[in-house]
Amino acid sequence: MYRTSFWAVLAFAFFSVNAAAQVKPEVLVEQRQAAMKLQGKYLFPLVPMAQGRVPYDAAIVARNAGYLDVLIKLAWDGFDPNTQGIRSRALPEVYSEPAKFKAAQETVFAEMNKFVAAARSGNEASTKAAIGDVVKACNGCHDSFRQRQ
Amino acid sequence: MYRTSFWAVLAFAFFSVNAAAQVKPEVLVEQRQAAMKLQGKYLFPLVPMAQGRVPYDAAIVARNAGYLDVLIKLAWDGFDPNTQGIRSRALPEVYSEPAKFKAAQETVFAEMNKFVAAARSGNEASTKAAIGDVVKACNGCHDSFRQRQ
Repeated sequence: MYRTSFWAVLAFAFFSVNAAAQVKPEVLVEQRQAAMKLQGKYLFPLVPMAQGRVPYDAAIVARNAGYLDVLIKLAWDGFDPNTQGIRSRALPEVYSEPAKFKAAQETVFAEMNKFVAAARSGNEASTKAAIGDVVKACNGCHDSFRQRQ
Repeated sequence: MYRTSFWAVLAFAFFSVNAAAQVKPEVLVEQRQAAMKLQGKYLFPLVPMAQGRVPYDAAIVARNAGYLDVLIKLAWDGFDPNTQGIRSRALPEVYSEPAKFKAAQETVFAEMNKFVAAARSGNEASTKAAIGDVVKACNGCHDSFRQRQ
């Protein structure tokens, strides 16, 4: 009786480890798209502020900077080679040019860090410039690695 | 000529303000679903750790706690009354019982704060308990406000 329980528990444990380690490719794609969608939710409203087309709201900018500081980290592990069969706008270059993809990612991180620091400093001019640089870094990666709509 | 440009710019500015203020209901639903999906991405792997079914990884727990601390804030503004016509699992009670919905939200925030604090403290036992309490708070809200699949 003891032995039966023991093995049942062990089998359950192994099943769980396996289930946690292997996320389905279609789920990985949904998760990375979710991260991109939320990046847009919190970045896009800042663009007309940076351009001076709508009033600059320092509280919104600071809040969104904090959110984006996390959100910018959440898509990259979804670009697993086993997702290449799943329909998405990711171009084959994501996998055929990994060094270039990694460099584009590092540029996005660097510009986002500059933006977060500027937003924390409260300097409106440098924050506006940094928002523009974040958008450029996003577009730079999309130009090479995302299919145009 | 000057006047024409002036009004064109002004019209563009008003359009932009309006576009920023009024996000389409279907976009609001997609954004709140994106937030929920990412909450799952970073919460679910912690559950078997909290239950002792897979090894506890303090680094993963701390990282995910930081992510979830932001992600837990991102869905709520998507439950705008004008999204009620969009297909989703949100039940009508979200809008017919706003005080109860708000209370469920406050419970989730409170349990998440406890979890983030526990993860920061490095106390494994209290962090494991807090993960369980976060899951209970999530389920508590879903039980009343989300359609079963």
